[in-house]
Amino acid sequence: MAQPWTLHPQLANDTGFIGDLTLSQALLMRDANYPWLLLVPRRAGVSEIVDLDPADRVQLMTEIADASRVLKSVTQCDKLNVAAIGNVVPQLHVHIVARRRDDPAWPRPVWGAAPPRAYEPAALAALIDAIRRALRLG
Amino acid sequence: MAQPWTLHPQLANDTGFIGDLTLSQALLMRDANYPWLLLVPRRAGVSEIVDLDPADRVQLMTEIADASRVLKSVTQCDKLNVAAIGNVVPQLHVHIVARRRDDPAWPRPVWGAAPPRAYEPAALAALIDAIRRALRLG
Repeated sequence: MAQPWTLHPQLANDTGFIGDLTLSQALLMRDANYPWLLLVPRRAGVSEIVDLDPADRVQLMTEIADASRVLKSVTQCDKLNVAAIGNVVPQLHVHIVARRRDDPAWPRPVWGAAPPRAYEPAALAALIDAIRRALRLG
Repeated sequence: MAQPWTLHPQLANDTGFIGDLTLSQALLMRDANYPWLLLVPRRAGVSEIVDLDPADRVQLMTEIADASRVLKSVTQCDKLNVAAIGNVVPQLHVHIVARRRDDPAWPRPVWGAAPPRAYEPAALAALIDAIRRALRLG
């Protein structure tokens, strides 16, 4: 029997839940420096995009585009950064980060650039709600 | 009339030419620290993955998977890093980097982590040739 998918505890710890898309769980990183989504395909044991089967890869691309569009519209950001890195947490997860020319890391990538900054709880809830509605979830 | 696509001069300067896939130009970064491909969709004026039309996005995913498979097979790396960042060079380009647990940046992402290291010319030519053959180019 195939092993069931469960979210990696490090990702669960670092994020708030947005909702389940067709393939991926959508999460918001708890870092108020940048509006930052994660898409985590619900497929057990997958570390690389190329490990997904072809239909799942196409679905992941659709979800990257949908999440990108929503994040850009909700945040009015200057640039999107999209990345699957996974050197530390091996479970496949795609970062979609809304970047601004005045954010703490610009123009560098966000990883390791600035200590995470906590959200005000109301701001976190409002952002998650806006993204959820724009993704037509819940 | 639509503006023709030309490779951004910064990308041309930093890379060696591998070949043209259906959508993207495949390039090798001139940094011997890591085997590092770029895929640059030949679409003028596009900065974000979500700016590509849906068919091009699917083709880009196919080319990411093909390039990932080839890079992994040629380098026997431990991990792939796949990213579209573009904070400095606005022309859409996707990085596919072969990572090893003993490379100069591990486990951090490669951007800004270590000064580029020049290839020996013969090593550069051999790597480009191996990748070109594995991609069935030329």
